[in-house]
Amino acid sequence: MTIFPAHYSGPTLGEVGEHGTIEAIVAAAPSSRNGDDAAVLNHASPNSRAVATTDMLIEGRHFRADWSTPEEIGQKSIVQNFADVEAMGARPVAALLAVSAPLYTPVSYIRGIAAGIAERVGEYSAELVGGDLTAGDQLVLSVTAIGSLGGSRPELTLNRARPGQRVVAHGRIGWSAAGLALLRHFGREGVPGQFAPLVDAHCAPRLNPGRGVIARATGATAMTDNSDGLVVDLNTIARRSGVGIDLHSADIAPEPLLVEAAELLGADPWEWVLSGGEDHTLLATTAGDPPSGFRAIGRVVRGDGVSVDGAAPKYDYGWVSF
Amino acid sequence: MTIFPAHYSGPTLGEVGEHGTIEAIVAAAPSSRNGDDAAVLNHASPNSRAVATTDMLIEGRHFRADWSTPEEIGQKSIVQNFADVEAMGARPVAALLAVSAPLYTPVSYIRGIAAGIAERVGEYSAELVGGDLTAGDQLVLSVTAIGSLGGSRPELTLNRARPGQRVVAHGRIGWSAAGLALLRHFGREGVPGQFAPLVDAHCAPRLNPGRGVIARATGATAMTDNSDGLVVDLNTIARRSGVGIDLHSADIAPEPLLVEAAELLGADPWEWVLSGGEDHTLLATTAGDPPSGFRAIGRVVRGDGVSVDGAAPKYDYGWVSF
Repeated sequence: MTIFPAHYSGPTLGEVGEHGTIEAIVAAAPSSRNGDDAAVLNHASPNSRAVATTDMLIEGRHFRADWSTPEEIGQKSIVQNFADVEAMGARPVAALLAVSAPLYTPVSYIRGIAAGIAERVGEYSAELVGGDLTAGDQLVLSVTAIGSLGGSRPELTLNRARPGQRVVAHGRIGWSAAGLALLRHFGREGVPGQFAPLVDAHCAPRLNPGRGVIARATGATAMTDNSDGLVVDLNTIARRSGVGIDLHSADIAPEPLLVEAAELLGADPWEWVLSGGEDHTLLATTAGDPPSGFRAIGRVVRGDGVSVDGAAPKYDYGWVSF
Repeated sequence: MTIFPAHYSGPTLGEVGEHGTIEAIVAAAPSSRNGDDAAVLNHASPNSRAVATTDMLIEGRHFRADWSTPEEIGQKSIVQNFADVEAMGARPVAALLAVSAPLYTPVSYIRGIAAGIAERVGEYSAELVGGDLTAGDQLVLSVTAIGSLGGSRPELTLNRARPGQRVVAHGRIGWSAAGLALLRHFGREGVPGQFAPLVDAHCAPRLNPGRGVIARATGATAMTDNSDGLVVDLNTIARRSGVGIDLHSADIAPEPLLVEAAELLGADPWEWVLSGGEDHTLLATTAGDPPSGFRAIGRVVRGDGVSVDGAAPKYDYGWVSF
């Protein structure tokens, strides 16, 4: 049974009913497209294509009600889906939310999730356009993101990295894993204040909207996001492209805050950098200079797999669902 | 704990792992768009708009593993989503599937769900373009459907029914509820053979692809599908349009097979017709003749609510999730 924090009080889903709960969601994340059998999106720009992706988040597995606020859960659900849209070089335009929740869930908690979703989709000028609500044993969110891929350049698939190209990144690497390690050790209330940015990176990741579109417009060849782990995700690009990727240790070295957290926990910050996922940092390859907002972290080389300074990485595993 | 039928044997999700299970899904429902961060759809026809909807199905609540085969569960998950796309007058073009399943689930069972999805999306010339897979306590499917709304006619919203128009329907009414009642009474193996069409209507509903597009092209004004119950769903059109709807009892009278099932169970077949949902029958209003494949079942009138032959319906409730 999920324990919801005491300050999410008031009537429950069971008391308010399906329609009352839907009203609370729509009030927190309003959209004129919502409320019919299906949502109709805007006319897309000429020559554009729609992009779609989906992710399911389960309480106790992908988030914990005692570690994250519902607003953060909503934010994270959007960022991880929108990062997949951006990783194609596309612009997120809409999200759908299917929720299963126990009847004892406070409506205020679901409203918090919707408010977090509204905040993040608003940053992208996107909308929560529809969804579904059902009672269930577990709190389960299933978010679908729809994006628009404009213009004639190809989408940024995983298979177009070529030897000699730069490997570039937009966003932090290893911060989400560090935040998770701190939460596991201290619980949310106990994490020392200076590590708040690491906890935020885990509970409410944020990506600057539009970096994927910029990367595609300025010549990136392949792109993904760091969802399962730096080495694992780059290895997917390497395998699909038939190349190797060599990371430069100086360019991915853990920042002082990571080092400090690792010392406190007796951990190795390189494990967070190399194997930690859920940063949703955009990872791309390009024949040119790093796109605006991206920094170089390595090179595409002949061969296969991912190396660091030419040697096997110290940690090469990553997140798997099971 | 879900009991999977014995003939779905072989390795489980826990044994095969995430990647092996995804391979089984993709093999059963192949698409060249699948396997990147997000799926890129075809260029849509000029002047078209994307349409999106999502539904979550939970084992024990929306389907039962002892009543439905996994193939049927997959089929139903597509039809209920594609019906929502058709109810806008749009053409379904793609589906996404997020699955949560216990680790003891046989991979062959998940493959069966994917095969059922592939069969139904194929009937629409659509594809399963992406998804997500995670371990969880319950078997939960979350399907998103994306459609294409072409041309300049407005989409078929709920709020454009006008007095004097015909109410028309494409598909059976009450059959799914009758099938459910039979399953509750007899279990799947025990239902007398002559009622197989009713059980099929519940476990694996089918809709002729394209009827929603035809209705929109030939002047329908409002449309929905019978998912929560005939009176409830028509009442939504009536409320949103500011009109009343009068059904003609002769045009919705239960067919002999419904009457026979009701006699066997000591039930009233009119309850299935008026309050039974999940038929996913398209319900529309139109100023002209019924579109091809539709039949007239009533009239839009001044006033509010839904009546039958001018009187309050004998049953006016429907399905609510909780």
